[in-house]
Amino acid sequence: MTKRLKNFMDEQMLMIDDELYSLVEKIIAPKHLKESMLYSLKAGGKRIRPLFVLAVSQMFNNKQKEAYTVAAAVEMIHTYSLIHDDLPSMDNDELRRGKPTNHVVYGEALATLAGDALNTLSFGVLARMKNITPDIKIELINLLSVAAGAEGMVGGQVLDIDGETRQLSLEELENVHLNKTGALLRFSIESGAVLSNATEEERKNLVEYAHHIGLAFQIQDDILDIEATSEELGKTAGKDVASNKSTYPAILSLEGAKNKLNEHYEIAISCLNKLQVDTSILKELSEYIVRRNK
Amino acid sequence: MTKRLKNFMDEQMLMIDDELYSLVEKIIAPKHLKESMLYSLKAGGKRIRPLFVLAVSQMFNNKQKEAYTVAAAVEMIHTYSLIHDDLPSMDNDELRRGKPTNHVVYGEALATLAGDALNTLSFGVLARMKNITPDIKIELINLLSVAAGAEGMVGGQVLDIDGETRQLSLEELENVHLNKTGALLRFSIESGAVLSNATEEERKNLVEYAHHIGLAFQIQDDILDIEATSEELGKTAGKDVASNKSTYPAILSLEGAKNKLNEHYEIAISCLNKLQVDTSILKELSEYIVRRNK
Repeated sequence: MTKRLKNFMDEQMLMIDDELYSLVEKIIAPKHLKESMLYSLKAGGKRIRPLFVLAVSQMFNNKQKEAYTVAAAVEMIHTYSLIHDDLPSMDNDELRRGKPTNHVVYGEALATLAGDALNTLSFGVLARMKNITPDIKIELINLLSVAAGAEGMVGGQVLDIDGETRQLSLEELENVHLNKTGALLRFSIESGAVLSNATEEERKNLVEYAHHIGLAFQIQDDILDIEATSEELGKTAGKDVASNKSTYPAILSLEGAKNKLNEHYEIAISCLNKLQVDTSILKELSEYIVRRNK
Repeated sequence: MTKRLKNFMDEQMLMIDDELYSLVEKIIAPKHLKESMLYSLKAGGKRIRPLFVLAVSQMFNNKQKEAYTVAAAVEMIHTYSLIHDDLPSMDNDELRRGKPTNHVVYGEALATLAGDALNTLSFGVLARMKNITPDIKIELINLLSVAAGAEGMVGGQVLDIDGETRQLSLEELENVHLNKTGALLRFSIESGAVLSNATEEERKNLVEYAHHIGLAFQIQDDILDIEATSEELGKTAGKDVASNKSTYPAILSLEGAKNKLNEHYEIAISCLNKLQVDTSILKELSEYIVRRNK
Protein backbone atom coordinates (compact mmCIF):
# COMPACT_ATOMS: atom_id res chain seq x y z
CA MET A 1 0.00 0.00 0.00
CA THR A 2 1.36 3.44 -0.91
CA LYS A 3 1.88 5.99 1.83
CA ARG A 4 -0.62 8.27 0.13
CA LEU A 5 -3.33 5.59 0.13
CA LYS A 6 -2.58 4.78 3.74
CA ASN A 7 -2.96 8.44 4.68
CA PHE A 8 -6.19 8.70 2.70
CA MET A 9 -7.60 5.58 4.34
CA ASP A 10 -6.55 6.49 7.87
CA GLU A 11 -7.92 10.00 7.61
CA GLN A 12 -11.17 9.08 5.87
CA MET A 13 -11.90 6.09 8.07
CA LEU A 14 -11.80 8.28 11.15
CA MET A 15 -14.32 10.66 9.62
CA ILE A 16 -16.49 7.85 8.25
CA ASP A 17 -16.60 6.16 11.66
CA ASP A 18 -17.39 9.44 13.39
CA GLU A 19 -20.36 10.04 11.13
CA LEU A 20 -21.52 6.42 11.28
CA TYR A 21 -21.46 6.16 15.06
CA SER A 22 -22.95 9.59 15.65
CA LEU A 23 -25.86 8.87 13.29
CA VAL A 24 -26.73 5.80 15.36
CA GLU A 25 -25.92 7.27 18.77
CA LYS A 26 -28.30 10.16 18.27
CA ILE A 27 -31.40 8.12 17.58
CA ILE A 28 -33.85 7.65 20.44
CA ALA A 29 -34.25 3.90 20.82
CA PRO A 30 -34.01 1.13 23.44
CA LYS A 31 -30.51 1.04 24.89
CA HIS A 32 -29.55 -2.52 24.02
CA LEU A 33 -30.94 -2.20 20.49
CA LYS A 34 -28.56 0.70 19.90
CA GLU A 35 -25.78 -1.26 21.57
CA SER A 36 -26.38 -4.20 19.28
CA MET A 37 -26.41 -1.95 16.19
CA LEU A 38 -23.22 -0.21 17.29
CA TYR A 39 -21.52 -3.47 18.26
CA SER A 40 -21.49 -4.69 14.66
CA LEU A 41 -20.73 -1.26 13.20
CA LYS A 42 -17.76 -0.97 15.57
CA ALA A 43 -16.51 -4.51 14.95
CA GLY A 44 -14.09 -3.11 12.42
CA GLY A 45 -14.14 -4.03 8.79
CA LYS A 46 -12.28 -2.48 5.91
CA ARG A 47 -14.88 0.24 5.17
CA ILE A 48 -14.29 -0.44 1.47
CA ARG A 49 -17.72 0.83 0.42
CA PRO A 50 -17.54 4.11 2.36
CA LEU A 51 -13.99 4.66 1.09
CA PHE A 52 -15.29 4.37 -2.48
CA VAL A 53 -17.95 7.01 -1.84
CA LEU A 54 -15.24 9.35 -0.56
CA ALA A 55 -12.61 8.49 -3.16
CA VAL A 56 -15.05 9.21 -6.01
CA SER A 57 -16.43 12.40 -4.42
CA GLN A 58 -12.96 13.76 -3.77
CA MET A 59 -11.80 12.81 -7.26
CA PHE A 60 -14.42 15.31 -8.48
CA ASN A 61 -13.22 17.87 -5.94
CA ASN A 62 -16.45 17.52 -4.05
CA LYS A 63 -15.81 18.40 -0.41
CA GLN A 64 -19.43 18.22 0.80
CA LYS A 65 -19.56 16.61 4.20
CA GLU A 66 -22.77 14.83 3.16
CA ALA A 67 -20.56 12.32 1.33
CA TYR A 68 -19.84 10.90 4.80
CA THR A 69 -23.56 10.45 5.41
CA VAL A 70 -23.91 8.50 2.16
CA ALA A 71 -20.83 6.50 3.15
CA ALA A 72 -22.41 5.77 6.52
CA ALA A 73 -25.70 4.72 4.90
CA VAL A 74 -23.99 2.18 2.68
CA GLU A 75 -22.00 0.79 5.61
CA MET A 76 -25.25 0.41 7.59
CA ILE A 77 -26.66 -1.71 4.77
CA HIS A 78 -23.45 -3.75 4.50
CA THR A 79 -23.37 -4.29 8.27
CA TYR A 80 -27.04 -5.30 8.52
CA SER A 81 -26.44 -7.84 5.74
CA LEU A 82 -23.52 -9.33 7.68
CA ILE A 83 -25.57 -9.56 10.89
CA HIS A 84 -28.36 -11.41 9.07
CA ASP A 85 -25.92 -13.56 7.03
CA ASP A 86 -24.26 -14.74 10.22
CA LEU A 87 -27.53 -15.95 11.79
CA PRO A 88 -27.82 -19.68 12.53
CA SER A 89 -30.52 -20.03 9.85
CA MET A 90 -28.16 -18.51 7.27
CA ASP A 91 -24.37 -19.03 7.38
CA ASN A 92 -24.34 -19.81 11.10
CA ASP A 93 -21.07 -17.98 11.73
CA GLU A 94 -19.90 -17.36 15.26
CA LEU A 95 -16.87 -15.30 14.32
CA ARG A 96 -16.75 -12.14 12.19
CA ARG A 97 -13.81 -9.79 11.90
CA GLY A 98 -12.21 -11.76 14.72
CA LYS A 99 -15.07 -11.11 17.14
CA PRO A 100 -18.17 -13.05 18.21
CA THR A 101 -21.01 -12.36 15.79
CA ASN A 102 -23.97 -10.19 16.79
CA HIS A 103 -26.37 -13.02 17.65
CA VAL A 104 -23.71 -14.75 19.76
CA VAL A 105 -23.51 -11.63 21.92
CA TYR A 106 -27.10 -10.31 21.79
CA GLY A 107 -29.20 -13.33 20.86
CA GLU A 108 -30.90 -14.10 17.57
CA ALA A 109 -33.99 -11.98 18.11
CA LEU A 110 -32.10 -8.78 18.86
CA ALA A 111 -29.57 -9.46 16.09
CA THR A 112 -32.42 -9.81 13.59
CA LEU A 113 -33.98 -6.57 14.81
CA ALA A 114 -30.66 -4.67 14.88
CA GLY A 115 -30.18 -5.66 11.24
CA ASP A 116 -33.70 -4.55 10.39
CA ALA A 117 -33.16 -1.23 12.14
CA LEU A 118 -29.89 -0.55 10.29
CA ASN A 119 -31.56 -1.34 6.96
CA THR A 120 -34.36 1.15 7.70
CA LEU A 121 -32.07 3.80 9.20
CA SER A 122 -29.91 3.96 6.09
CA PHE A 123 -32.82 5.43 4.11
CA GLY A 124 -33.68 7.83 6.89
CA VAL A 125 -30.19 9.31 7.08
CA LEU A 126 -30.20 9.89 3.31
CA ALA A 127 -33.60 11.58 3.53
CA ARG A 128 -32.41 13.85 6.35
CA MET A 129 -29.19 15.13 4.69
CA LYS A 130 -28.77 18.90 4.68
CA ASN A 131 -27.45 20.87 1.68
CA ILE A 132 -28.41 18.17 -0.81
CA THR A 133 -31.31 18.82 -3.16
CA PRO A 134 -34.41 16.65 -2.77
CA ASP A 135 -33.87 15.46 -6.37
CA ILE A 136 -30.43 14.09 -5.59
CA LYS A 137 -31.59 12.57 -2.32
CA ILE A 138 -34.41 10.77 -4.16
CA GLU A 139 -31.97 9.50 -6.78
CA LEU A 140 -29.66 8.15 -4.06
CA ILE A 141 -32.51 6.52 -2.14
CA ASN A 142 -33.80 4.88 -5.30
CA LEU A 143 -30.31 3.61 -6.23
CA LEU A 144 -29.70 2.31 -2.70
CA SER A 145 -33.06 0.56 -2.54
CA VAL A 146 -32.38 -1.24 -5.83
CA ALA A 147 -28.78 -2.06 -4.88
CA ALA A 148 -29.64 -3.36 -1.41
CA GLY A 149 -32.93 -5.16 -2.07
CA ALA A 150 -34.37 -8.09 -3.98
CA GLU A 151 -32.96 -6.72 -7.24
CA GLY A 152 -29.47 -6.46 -5.79
CA MET A 153 -27.81 -7.61 -2.59
CA VAL A 154 -30.70 -9.60 -1.08
CA GLY A 155 -31.40 -11.23 -4.44
CA GLY A 156 -27.71 -12.16 -4.70
CA GLN A 157 -27.83 -13.65 -1.24
CA VAL A 158 -30.74 -15.87 -2.33
CA LEU A 159 -28.84 -16.95 -5.45
CA ASP A 160 -25.82 -17.68 -3.26
CA ILE A 161 -27.87 -19.97 -1.00
CA ASP A 162 -29.13 -21.80 -4.11
CA GLY A 163 -25.49 -22.23 -5.16
CA GLU A 164 -24.76 -24.16 -1.99
CA THR A 165 -26.73 -27.14 -3.20
CA ARG A 166 -25.23 -27.45 -6.70
CA GLN A 167 -22.17 -26.32 -8.70
CA LEU A 168 -22.88 -23.05 -10.48
CA SER A 169 -21.59 -22.19 -13.94
CA LEU A 170 -19.15 -19.28 -14.24
CA GLU A 171 -21.99 -17.12 -15.56
CA GLU A 172 -24.26 -18.02 -12.65
CA LEU A 173 -21.46 -17.39 -10.17
CA GLU A 174 -20.82 -13.96 -11.70
CA ASN A 175 -24.51 -13.22 -11.41
CA VAL A 176 -24.42 -14.12 -7.70
CA HIS A 177 -21.56 -11.74 -7.05
CA LEU A 178 -22.77 -8.90 -9.27
CA ASN A 179 -25.80 -8.88 -6.99
CA LYS A 180 -24.57 -10.07 -3.61
CA THR A 181 -21.54 -7.79 -3.33
CA GLY A 182 -21.37 -5.96 -6.66
CA ALA A 183 -24.61 -4.01 -6.38
CA LEU A 184 -23.63 -2.27 -3.16
CA LEU A 185 -20.09 -1.56 -4.39
CA ARG A 186 -21.61 -0.08 -7.53
CA PHE A 187 -23.88 2.10 -5.39
CA SER A 188 -20.86 3.30 -3.41
CA ILE A 189 -19.07 4.36 -6.57
CA GLU A 190 -22.10 5.68 -8.42
CA SER A 191 -23.35 7.65 -5.42
CA GLY A 192 -20.05 9.53 -5.31
CA ALA A 193 -20.65 10.49 -8.95
CA VAL A 194 -24.29 11.48 -8.29
CA LEU A 195 -23.31 13.62 -5.31
CA SER A 196 -20.68 15.35 -7.46
CA ASN A 197 -22.92 16.03 -10.47
CA ALA A 198 -20.67 13.92 -12.70
CA THR A 199 -21.53 13.86 -16.42
CA GLU A 200 -23.43 10.92 -17.94
CA GLU A 201 -20.19 9.79 -19.60
CA GLU A 202 -18.21 9.90 -16.35
CA ARG A 203 -20.95 8.05 -14.55
CA LYS A 204 -21.09 5.37 -17.25
CA ASN A 205 -17.34 4.78 -17.02
CA LEU A 206 -17.49 4.61 -13.24
CA VAL A 207 -20.35 2.12 -13.31
CA GLU A 208 -18.35 -0.09 -15.68
CA TYR A 209 -15.34 0.31 -13.42
CA ALA A 210 -17.54 -0.74 -10.49
CA HIS A 211 -18.70 -3.84 -12.34
CA HIS A 212 -15.16 -5.10 -12.89
CA ILE A 213 -13.57 -4.03 -9.62
CA GLY A 214 -16.51 -5.65 -7.83
CA LEU A 215 -15.89 -8.98 -9.50
CA ALA A 216 -12.13 -8.68 -8.90
CA PHE A 217 -12.86 -7.98 -5.23
CA GLN A 218 -15.00 -11.10 -4.98
CA ILE A 219 -12.48 -13.33 -6.77
CA GLN A 220 -9.82 -12.17 -4.30
CA ASP A 221 -12.21 -13.10 -1.49
CA ASP A 222 -12.48 -16.62 -2.89
CA ILE A 223 -8.69 -16.86 -3.32
CA LEU A 224 -8.09 -15.66 0.25
CA ASP A 225 -10.41 -18.35 1.56
CA ILE A 226 -7.84 -20.82 0.19
CA GLU A 227 -4.56 -18.97 0.68
CA ALA A 228 -5.02 -17.01 3.91
CA THR A 229 -5.25 -18.26 7.48
CA SER A 230 -8.28 -17.82 9.75
CA GLU A 231 -6.17 -15.50 11.88
CA GLU A 232 -5.44 -13.23 8.92
CA LEU A 233 -9.08 -13.22 7.81
CA GLY A 234 -10.68 -12.80 11.23
CA LYS A 235 -13.09 -15.52 10.12
CA THR A 236 -12.87 -19.23 9.41
CA ALA A 237 -10.63 -19.84 6.36
CA GLY A 238 -11.10 -22.81 4.08
CA LYS A 239 -14.84 -22.78 4.65
CA ASP A 240 -15.70 -22.62 0.96
CA VAL A 241 -13.73 -25.74 0.09
CA ALA A 242 -15.01 -27.57 3.19
CA SER A 243 -18.62 -26.80 2.24
CA ASN A 244 -18.04 -27.57 -1.45
CA LYS A 245 -19.22 -24.08 -2.34
CA SER A 246 -19.25 -22.67 -5.86
CA THR A 247 -16.25 -20.34 -6.08
CA TYR A 248 -13.97 -18.99 -8.81
CA PRO A 249 -11.09 -21.32 -7.86
CA ALA A 250 -13.50 -24.28 -7.79
CA ILE A 251 -14.68 -23.50 -11.32
CA LEU A 252 -11.50 -22.11 -12.87
CA SER A 253 -8.71 -23.59 -10.67
CA LEU A 254 -6.67 -21.33 -8.40
CA GLU A 255 -4.46 -20.25 -11.31
CA GLY A 256 -7.47 -19.60 -13.54
CA ALA A 257 -9.13 -17.53 -10.81
CA LYS A 258 -5.99 -15.40 -10.49
CA ASN A 259 -5.96 -14.81 -14.23
CA LYS A 260 -9.65 -13.90 -14.19
CA LEU A 261 -9.01 -11.46 -11.35
CA ASN A 262 -6.25 -9.76 -13.34
CA GLU A 263 -8.51 -9.54 -16.37
CA HIS A 264 -11.22 -7.71 -14.42
CA TYR A 265 -8.64 -5.55 -12.69
CA GLU A 266 -7.17 -4.40 -15.99
CA ILE A 267 -10.54 -3.58 -17.51
CA ALA A 268 -11.42 -1.67 -14.33
CA ILE A 269 -8.24 0.42 -14.62
CA SER A 270 -8.89 1.08 -18.31
CA CYS A 271 -12.31 2.53 -17.35
CA LEU A 272 -10.60 4.91 -14.95
CA ASN A 273 -8.15 5.91 -17.68
CA LYS A 274 -11.06 7.28 -19.71
CA LEU A 275 -11.84 9.87 -17.04
CA GLN A 276 -10.42 13.41 -17.34
CA VAL A 277 -9.81 13.76 -13.60
CA ASP A 278 -7.06 12.61 -11.23
CA THR A 279 -7.94 8.96 -10.60
CA SER A 280 -4.79 8.04 -8.70
CA ILE A 281 -6.45 7.40 -5.31
CA LEU A 282 -9.09 5.26 -6.96
CA LYS A 283 -6.36 3.31 -8.77
CA GLU A 284 -4.42 2.77 -5.58
CA LEU A 285 -7.59 1.68 -3.84
CA SER A 286 -8.28 -0.76 -6.69
CA GLU A 287 -4.83 -2.25 -6.40
CA TYR A 288 -5.15 -2.54 -2.64
CA ILE A 289 -8.45 -4.40 -3.05
CA VAL A 290 -7.07 -7.03 -5.39
CA ARG A 291 -3.73 -7.46 -3.61
CA ARG A 292 -5.06 -7.48 0.00
CA ASN A 293 -4.29 -10.51 2.13
CA LYS A 294 -7.34 -10.30 4.40
CA MET B 1 -70.06 -2.40 9.84
CA THR B 2 -72.07 0.13 7.80
CA LYS B 3 -72.76 -0.62 4.16
CA ARG B 4 -70.82 2.48 3.18
CA LEU B 5 -67.72 1.37 5.08
CA LYS B 6 -68.03 -2.11 3.60
CA ASN B 7 -68.18 -0.62 0.09
CA PHE B 8 -65.21 1.62 0.82
CA MET B 9 -63.17 -1.25 2.20
CA ASP B 10 -64.07 -3.70 -0.58
CA GLU B 11 -63.32 -1.19 -3.32
CA GLN B 12 -60.12 0.18 -1.79
CA MET B 13 -58.73 -3.20 -0.83
CA LEU B 14 -58.93 -4.37 -4.42
CA MET B 15 -56.96 -1.34 -5.59
CA ILE B 16 -54.49 -1.56 -2.69
CA ASP B 17 -53.81 -5.23 -3.43
CA ASP B 18 -53.44 -4.54 -7.15
CA GLU B 19 -50.80 -1.90 -6.49
CA LEU B 20 -49.06 -3.96 -3.81
CA TYR B 21 -48.76 -7.11 -5.89
CA SER B 22 -47.80 -5.32 -9.09
CA LEU B 23 -45.03 -3.39 -7.32
CA VAL B 24 -43.50 -6.69 -6.22
CA GLU B 25 -44.25 -8.65 -9.38
CA LYS B 26 -42.43 -6.17 -11.58
CA ILE B 27 -39.10 -6.31 -9.78
CA ILE B 28 -36.39 -8.45 -11.34
CA ALA B 29 -35.33 -10.89 -8.65
CA PRO B 30 -34.91 -14.62 -8.00
CA LYS B 31 -38.22 -16.40 -8.54
CA HIS B 32 -38.64 -17.97 -5.12
CA LEU B 33 -37.62 -14.77 -3.35
CA LYS B 34 -40.49 -12.99 -5.08
CA GLU B 35 -42.77 -15.93 -4.32
CA SER B 36 -41.86 -15.74 -0.66
CA MET B 37 -42.46 -11.97 -0.56
CA LEU B 38 -45.80 -12.33 -2.34
CA TYR B 39 -46.85 -15.31 -0.21
CA SER B 40 -46.97 -13.19 2.93
CA LEU B 41 -48.40 -10.14 1.16
CA LYS B 42 -51.18 -12.33 -0.24
CA ALA B 43 -51.86 -14.14 3.03
CA GLY B 44 -54.69 -11.71 3.66
CA GLY B 45 -54.80 -9.37 6.59
CA LYS B 46 -57.10 -6.48 7.26
CA ARG B 47 -55.07 -3.85 5.33
CA ILE B 48 -55.84 -1.43 8.16
CA ARG B 49 -52.76 0.72 7.49
CA PRO B 50 -53.32 1.08 3.74
CA LEU B 51 -57.00 1.82 4.38
CA PHE B 52 -55.99 4.68 6.66
CA VAL B 53 -53.75 6.18 3.96
CA LEU B 54 -56.68 6.09 1.55
CA ALA B 55 -59.34 7.21 4.01
CA VAL B 56 -57.30 10.28 4.97
CA SER B 57 -56.36 11.13 1.39
CA GLN B 58 -59.93 10.85 0.20
CA MET B 59 -61.20 12.86 3.14
CA PHE B 60 -59.12 15.72 1.71
CA ASN B 61 -60.53 15.02 -1.77
CA ASN B 62 -57.13 13.85 -2.89
CA LYS B 63 -57.60 11.39 -5.76
CA GLN B 64 -53.90 10.91 -6.64
CA LYS B 65 -53.23 7.28 -7.43
CA GLU B 66 -49.88 7.61 -5.65
CA ALA B 67 -51.79 7.22 -2.38
CA TYR B 68 -51.98 3.52 -3.30
CA THR B 69 -48.20 3.40 -3.61
CA VAL B 70 -47.81 4.88 -0.13
CA ALA B 71 -50.43 2.41 1.10
CA ALA B 72 -48.48 -0.44 -0.50
CA ALA B 73 -45.20 0.78 1.05
CA VAL B 74 -46.63 0.76 4.55
CA GLU B 75 -48.14 -2.70 4.02
CA MET B 76 -44.71 -3.95 2.87
CA ILE B 77 -43.21 -2.74 6.16
CA HIS B 78 -46.05 -4.25 8.18
CA THR B 79 -45.73 -7.58 6.34
CA TYR B 80 -41.94 -7.75 6.69
CA SER B 81 -42.33 -7.15 10.41
CA LEU B 82 -44.80 -10.05 10.67
CA ILE B 83 -42.47 -12.37 8.74
CA HIS B 84 -39.57 -11.57 11.08
CA ASP B 85 -41.79 -11.62 14.21
CA ASP B 86 -42.96 -15.12 13.35
CA LEU B 87 -39.42 -16.54 13.09
CA PRO B 88 -38.46 -19.27 15.57
CA SER B 89 -35.97 -16.92 17.24
CA MET B 90 -38.73 -14.37 17.80
CA ASP B 91 -42.38 -15.38 18.47
CA ASN B 92 -41.98 -18.80 16.84
CA ASP B 93 -45.43 -18.74 15.26
CA GLU B 94 -46.39 -21.38 12.72
CA LEU B 95 -49.79 -19.91 11.90
CA ARG B 96 -50.61 -16.40 10.73
CA ARG B 97 -53.91 -15.26 9.29
CA GLY B 98 -54.92 -18.92 9.27
CA LYS B 99 -52.03 -19.99 7.03
CA PRO B 100 -48.57 -21.47 7.67
CA THR B 101 -46.09 -18.67 8.36
CA ASN B 102 -43.46 -17.70 5.78
CA HIS B 103 -40.56 -19.64 7.31
CA VAL B 104 -42.70 -22.77 7.63
CA VAL B 105 -43.24 -22.68 3.86
CA TYR B 106 -39.94 -21.20 2.60
CA GLY B 107 -37.47 -21.90 5.39
CA GLU B 108 -35.95 -19.47 7.83
CA ALA B 109 -33.21 -18.12 5.58
CA LEU B 110 -35.54 -17.16 2.75
CA ALA B 111 -38.13 -15.78 5.18
CA THR B 112 -35.48 -13.54 6.74
CA LEU B 113 -34.38 -12.34 3.30
CA ALA B 114 -37.95 -11.84 2.04
CA GLY B 115 -38.56 -9.61 5.06
CA ASP B 116 -35.35 -7.70 4.40
CA ALA B 117 -36.29 -7.21 0.76
CA LEU B 118 -39.77 -5.89 1.62
CA ASN B 119 -38.26 -3.45 4.11
CA THR B 120 -35.87 -2.11 1.48
CA LEU B 121 -38.43 -2.11 -1.34
CA SER B 122 -40.84 0.09 0.59
CA PHE B 123 -38.38 2.99 0.40
CA GLY B 124 -37.70 2.36 -3.27
CA VAL B 125 -41.35 2.51 -4.26
CA LEU B 126 -41.76 5.82 -2.44
CA ALA B 127 -38.67 7.21 -4.20
CA ARG B 128 -39.99 6.12 -7.61
CA MET B 129 -43.49 7.64 -7.34
CA LYS B 130 -44.54 9.80 -10.30
CA ASN B 131 -46.40 13.10 -9.92
CA ILE B 132 -45.23 13.65 -6.35
CA THR B 133 -42.68 16.39 -5.68
CA PRO B 134 -39.24 15.30 -4.45
CA ASP B 135 -39.87 17.36 -1.29
CA ILE B 136 -42.96 15.37 -0.41
CA LYS B 137 -41.29 12.08 -1.27
CA ILE B 138 -38.38 12.94 1.04
CA GLU B 139 -40.79 13.87 3.82
CA LEU B 140 -42.63 10.55 3.44
CA ILE B 141 -39.38 8.54 3.33
CA ASN B 142 -38.12 10.29 6.44
CA LEU B 143 -41.40 9.71 8.29
CA LEU B 144 -41.49 6.04 7.24
CA SER B 145 -37.88 5.43 8.25
CA VAL B 146 -38.53 6.87 11.72
CA ALA B 147 -41.85 5.03 12.10
CA ALA B 148 -40.50 1.67 10.96
CA GLY B 149 -37.02 1.67 12.49
CA ALA B 150 -35.29 1.70 15.86
CA GLU B 151 -37.15 4.86 16.86
CA GLY B 152 -40.52 3.28 16.05
CA MET B 153 -41.70 -0.21 15.17
CA VAL B 154 -38.41 -2.08 15.60
CA GLY B 155 -37.73 -0.27 18.87
CA GLY B 156 -41.21 -1.23 20.06
CA GLN B 157 -40.57 -4.82 19.15
CA VAL B 158 -37.44 -4.78 21.32
CA LEU B 159 -39.39 -3.26 24.23
CA ASP B 160 -42.05 -5.94 23.74
CA ILE B 161 -39.46 -8.71 24.00
CA ASP B 162 -38.20 -7.13 27.23
CA GLY B 163 -41.78 -7.16 28.49
CA GLU B 164 -41.93 -10.92 28.17
CA THR B 165 -39.62 -11.41 31.10
CA ARG B 166 -41.33 -9.07 33.57
CA GLN B 167 -44.66 -7.34 34.16
CA LEU B 168 -44.66 -3.88 32.60
CA SER B 169 -46.37 -0.86 34.12
CA LEU B 170 -49.26 0.71 32.18
CA GLU B 171 -46.93 3.49 31.04
CA GLU B 172 -44.31 1.03 29.81
CA LEU B 173 -46.97 -1.01 28.03
CA GLU B 174 -48.28 2.12 26.30
CA ASN B 175 -44.74 2.92 25.23
CA VAL B 176 -44.38 -0.55 23.71
CA HIS B 177 -47.53 -0.13 21.67
CA LEU B 178 -47.00 3.49 20.67
CA ASN B 179 -43.82 2.21 19.02
CA LYS B 180 -44.56 -1.37 18.00
CA THR B 181 -47.88 -0.75 16.28
CA GLY B 182 -48.64 2.93 16.87
CA ALA B 183 -45.76 4.40 14.89
CA LEU B 184 -46.74 2.71 11.63
CA LEU B 185 -50.43 3.50 12.11
CA ARG B 186 -49.45 7.10 12.71
CA PHE B 187 -47.40 7.07 9.52
CA SER B 188 -50.40 5.72 7.61
CA ILE B 189 -52.60 8.54 8.84
CA GLU B 190 -49.99 11.29 8.66
CA SER B 191 -48.82 10.27 5.17
CA GLY B 192 -52.37 10.75 3.89
CA ALA B 193 -52.25 14.29 5.29
CA VAL B 194 -48.78 14.97 3.83
CA LEU B 195 -49.86 13.70 0.39
CA SER B 196 -52.89 15.98 0.54
CA ASN B 197 -51.07 19.12 1.65
CA ALA B 198 -53.09 19.28 4.84
CA THR B 199 -52.57 22.32 7.07
CA GLU B 200 -50.35 22.11 10.17
CA GLU B 201 -53.48 22.24 12.32
CA GLU B 202 -55.17 19.40 10.43
CA ARG B 203 -52.02 17.34 10.60
CA LYS B 204 -51.67 17.93 14.33
CA ASN B 205 -55.25 16.77 14.96
CA LEU B 206 -54.75 13.71 12.80
CA VAL B 207 -51.52 12.77 14.58
CA GLU B 208 -53.33 13.03 17.91
CA TYR B 209 -56.16 10.96 16.50
CA ALA B 210 -53.58 8.38 15.35
CA HIS B 211 -52.09 8.21 18.85
CA HIS B 212 -55.41 7.33 20.47
CA ILE B 213 -56.89 5.11 17.77
CA GLY B 214 -53.57 3.22 17.71
CA LEU B 215 -53.77 2.49 21.43
CA ALA B 216 -57.46 1.57 21.13
CA PHE B 217 -56.54 -0.82 18.30
CA GLN B 218 -53.92 -2.51 20.45
CA ILE B 219 -56.17 -2.81 23.51
CA GLN B 220 -58.79 -4.51 21.31
CA ASP B 221 -56.03 -6.90 20.15
CA ASP B 222 -55.31 -7.80 23.76
CA ILE B 223 -59.03 -8.24 24.51
CA LEU B 224 -59.51 -10.45 21.46
CA ASP B 225 -56.68 -12.69 22.60
CA ILE B 226 -58.90 -13.48 25.60
CA GLU B 227 -62.39 -13.32 24.11
CA ALA B 228 -62.00 -14.64 20.54
CA THR B 229 -61.28 -18.17 19.35
CA SER B 230 -58.17 -19.23 17.39
CA GLU B 231 -60.47 -19.88 14.44
CA GLU B 232 -61.79 -16.32 14.49
CA LEU B 233 -58.31 -14.84 14.86
CA GLY B 234 -56.52 -17.05 12.34
CA LYS B 235 -53.80 -17.37 14.97
CA THR B 236 -53.47 -19.02 18.35
CA ALA B 237 -55.82 -17.34 20.85
CA GLY B 238 -55.07 -17.19 24.57
CA LYS B 239 -51.35 -17.02 23.89
CA ASP B 240 -50.84 -13.84 25.93
CA VAL B 241 -52.33 -15.32 29.09
CA ALA B 242 -50.53 -18.64 28.58
CA SER B 243 -47.18 -16.85 28.24
CA ASN B 244 -47.92 -14.47 31.11
CA LYS B 245 -47.42 -11.51 28.80
CA SER B 246 -47.91 -7.89 29.81
CA THR B 247 -51.27 -6.84 28.33
CA TYR B 248 -53.95 -4.27 29.08
CA PRO B 249 -56.31 -6.86 30.58
CA ALA B 250 -53.46 -8.26 32.70
CA ILE B 251 -52.72 -4.81 34.14
CA LEU B 252 -56.22 -3.28 34.23
CA SER B 253 -58.52 -6.37 34.28
CA LEU B 254 -60.70 -7.17 31.29
CA GLU B 255 -63.28 -4.60 32.37
CA GLY B 256 -60.62 -1.95 32.96
CA ALA B 257 -59.12 -2.62 29.53
CA LYS B 258 -62.52 -2.14 27.91
CA ASN B 259 -62.96 1.16 29.72
CA LYS B 260 -59.49 2.28 28.67
CA LEU B 261 -60.28 1.35 25.08
CA ASN B 262 -63.43 3.49 25.15
CA GLU B 263 -61.51 6.38 26.65
CA HIS B 264 -58.99 6.37 23.79
CA TYR B 265 -61.72 5.82 21.23
CA GLU B 266 -63.64 8.87 22.44
CA ILE B 267 -60.59 11.12 22.43
CA ALA B 268 -59.77 9.88 18.93
CA ILE B 269 -63.25 10.79 17.70
CA SER B 270 -63.02 14.21 19.36
CA CYS B 271 -59.83 14.87 17.36
CA LEU B 272 -61.72 14.10 14.15
CA ASN B 273 -64.52 16.44 15.22
CA LYS B 274 -62.05 19.33 15.14
CA LEU B 275 -61.49 18.86 11.40
CA GLN B 276 -63.49 20.94 8.90
CA VAL B 277 -63.85 18.10 6.40
CA ASP B 278 -66.16 15.09 6.11
CA THR B 279 -64.63 12.60 8.54
CA SER B 280 -67.42 10.02 8.36
CA ILE B 281 -65.40 7.25 6.68
CA LEU B 282 -62.59 7.74 9.17
CA LYS B 283 -65.10 7.57 12.02
CA GLU B 284 -66.65 4.40 10.68
CA LEU B 285 -63.20 2.90 10.23
CA SER B 286 -62.36 3.83 13.83
CA GLU B 287 -65.50 2.17 15.12
CA TYR B 288 -64.80 -0.93 13.06
CA ILE B 289 -61.29 -1.16 14.51
CA VAL B 290 -62.39 -1.08 18.12
CA ARG B 291 -65.46 -3.30 17.63
CA ARG B 292 -63.86 -5.94 15.38
CA ASN B 293 -63.94 -9.55 16.54
CA LYS B 294 -60.78 -10.71 14.75
